Amino acid sequence: MINLKGILDSIPSNILKLADGKRGDIGNSAKMYAKAFYEKLNVDALTLQPYQGEDALKAFLNYEDKWSVVLGLTSNSGAMDFQLKMFNTQPLYRIIIEKCMEWGSKDNLMFVIGGTHAELLQAIRTFSPNHFFLVPGIGHQGGDFEQIIEDGLTPDCGLIVSSSRKIIYASKGKDFAEKAREEALKLQAKMKLV
Amino acid sequence: MINLKGILDSIPSNILKLADGKRGDIGNSAKMYAKAFYEKLNVDALTLQPYQGEDALKAFLNYEDKWSVVLGLTSNSGAMDFQLKMFNTQPLYRIIIEKCMEWGSKDNLMFVIGGTHAELLQAIRTFSPNHFFLVPGIGHQGGDFEQIIEDGLTPDCGLIVSSSRKIIYASKGKDFAEKAREEALKLQAKMKLV
Repeated sequence: MINLKGILDSIPSNILKLADGKRGDIGNSAKMYAKAFYEKLNVDALTLQPYQGEDALKAFLNYEDKWSVVLGLTSNSGAMDFQLKMFNTQPLYRIIIEKCMEWGSKDNLMFVIGGTHAELLQAIRTFSPNHFFLVPGIGHQGGDFEQIIEDGLTPDCGLIVSSSRKIIYASKGKDFAEKAREEALKLQAKMKLV
Repeated sequence: MINLKGILDSIPSNILKLADGKRGDIGNSAKMYAKAFYEKLNVDALTLQPYQGEDALKAFLNYEDKWSVVLGLTSNSGAMDFQLKMFNTQPLYRIIIEKCMEWGSKDNLMFVIGGTHAELLQAIRTFSPNHFFLVPGIGHQGGDFEQIIEDGLTPDCGLIVSSSRKIIYASKGKDFAEKAREEALKLQAKMKLV
């Protein structure tokens, strides 16, 4: 069995450990998930589902020194089923992000904004100018890196651009570590140009 | 470490094994969650988050002999933040349930409808007359059992009424098994009267 805790503990503390767990549950269960991820595994950040509202998120947001990363507008095709649907005059993801902003601060609450929606980032920054955005979907899923940077950056940076599959599936052979490193360095170089 | 797989395998096969995992993720990750719960742990049912739409749910609904149990209207207070919000002329939870009904059948798709919303069950049955509902919140959270039965039953039954905390927290002492059994039998007796 994989010793997840051991692997996590071996990562230097200046590297952000973000668990993409997409957890969400009612208050008392959320409290136990928060304890498991933020205390036991001691990750710095965890992705969360917003559907169950305030008590489901508060258990995580009570940790002021951790990052709660709420799904806003996700990178997958299913984002159009509900998140991008217009309700009255606004898309659902905006209603959710604005409401969640009442429950956490820019120092402990981020939002997932899929890189596949780069063309919406400028508009999103009008109602959420300061929160960090976690932006997946720029590798395998083809999000527009340049536009994300141009429209998403804030004075404090405000962006965590992540590539997962492009790196972890860089090779199936024995050269995996090497190939994955190459892909990671490629992205890092691109980011340095900003 | 707890041997979850061993415990699950020891449960007789005529007892429904429902994992309240509230999972949800984009297609390729959802596929791995589905494999873990439906194949490896071999549970019969799993609760799911709807926010990421079709590709996030399809990976689970592709299993026709398993129950995918999507959060509709949850029992917690945060249900009013988004789920009960009126969008145009309908609450969000209705929009979500009706859309999900296009992706699964009454034989592999259930919805979570919190027992704390018993007064809405009659209205919910008008647009979802045949799907099974998993109804938590009748123990600790105080849902109205009689009204749930009256308004929620279908010709095929259509209801799984669950009590968790009232049973698993029945006692903190050595008499736990006995007390938990008592609470479970109390609820079972009540159900038999229907």
